[in-house]
Amino acid sequence: MTAGSNARGRFVTFEGIDGSGKSTQARLLAEALRDQGRDVVQTREPGGSPGAEEIRELLLRGDPDRWSAETEILLFTAARRDHLERTIEPALAAGRVVICDRFADSTRVYQGVTRGDLRDLVDRLHALMIRREPDLTILIDMDPRTGLNRALGRHDGEDRFEGFGLEMQERLREGFLALAAEFPDRFRVIDGNRPVDSIARDVRNAVTEIL
Amino acid sequence: MTAGSNARGRFVTFEGIDGSGKSTQARLLAEALRDQGRDVVQTREPGGSPGAEEIRELLLRGDPDRWSAETEILLFTAARRDHLERTIEPALAAGRVVICDRFADSTRVYQGVTRGDLRDLVDRLHALMIRREPDLTILIDMDPRTGLNRALGRHDGEDRFEGFGLEMQERLREGFLALAAEFPDRFRVIDGNRPVDSIARDVRNAVTEIL
Repeated sequence: MTAGSNARGRFVTFEGIDGSGKSTQARLLAEALRDQGRDVVQTREPGGSPGAEEIRELLLRGDPDRWSAETEILLFTAARRDHLERTIEPALAAGRVVICDRFADSTRVYQGVTRGDLRDLVDRLHALMIRREPDLTILIDMDPRTGLNRALGRHDGEDRFEGFGLEMQERLREGFLALAAEFPDRFRVIDGNRPVDSIARDVRNAVTEIL
Repeated sequence: MTAGSNARGRFVTFEGIDGSGKSTQARLLAEALRDQGRDVVQTREPGGSPGAEEIRELLLRGDPDRWSAETEILLFTAARRDHLERTIEPALAAGRVVICDRFADSTRVYQGVTRGDLRDLVDRLHALMIRREPDLTILIDMDPRTGLNRALGRHDGEDRFEGFGLEMQERLREGFLALAAEFPDRFRVIDGNRPVDSIARDVRNAVTEIL
């Protein structure tokens, strides 16, 4: 897409296990950047656009076993394509800062951990239909037991993956750290086992580098 | 998938423009084969399995312009993957004859006609996520004006593509004929501008060759 503005759009994503505090940090970052006078779009996946929200409903409500991993990946990719076209790309083209809670890295890690043979399929589908990568990905690294307890305490009806227990949370954490090591240029790993304000300060510092 | 039966499963698809009579012919073929004692599964796309039917609802109801062509292709492919895993592959593995009203060729033609640059994307997505091709594809070739009048007369609330009018029906017919010429080994083109019984006899003869 072509930009109508001279401002430089920036795409920042937050990743981490459920209960890592990344959604809180995404919100605090958006508030801090707005206080600096920046034009910010805060969004999240799956969802983030009206069409993608419809697909999100299919994915997160009802019996999670009714889709195979492959069908689920296609639905996540359809939702992401819509989100990208309708929300993310127009905002970046207008020079805005887009802050997104989860993006393609979540699909890589969650599907890769539950079905290790699917990572290649996820990457090929991404290369074909999405292509866009974040300018910066903040990984909030959190103790799996703490994260699990927080996530279970929410009971928001969308505990698709939380149900798999502590061992799954540990494997997801390892998956995210491995991904950060694979893409060191765009990942920043921030220790989430600290007071919210300390984490938020580190997040702001990481983002300042790319603005 | 591995077959538990010695019988040879066969996958037959019907294609053609809306109002071509292919759904009627699919039903008549299923009845004729059952009369011969064959084990037949009759199905259709989009849909054909509970999960795919949920995706069908997203695709065929509501404002058709709310999805881009690319997102729509992903949703069709997700529905097809579910249909293939849950309905088609198990039936073929059990040695049954699967008769399907529309399959991947419809996506190739409908998306290719509305957005010509997408044919390659449709094929690459098919190669990645579906792979299965029919053993035989019956193309019911129908005069576009007759087909359009029939389709409009149905008013079934799913006239996603019929709305585009006669010129679109003509281009879709050409698209199907071009596809039949591209894959002559599996396509049989049958003239649909004749009495239902004559068409049904030609369909039975074509299917008998591959059973």
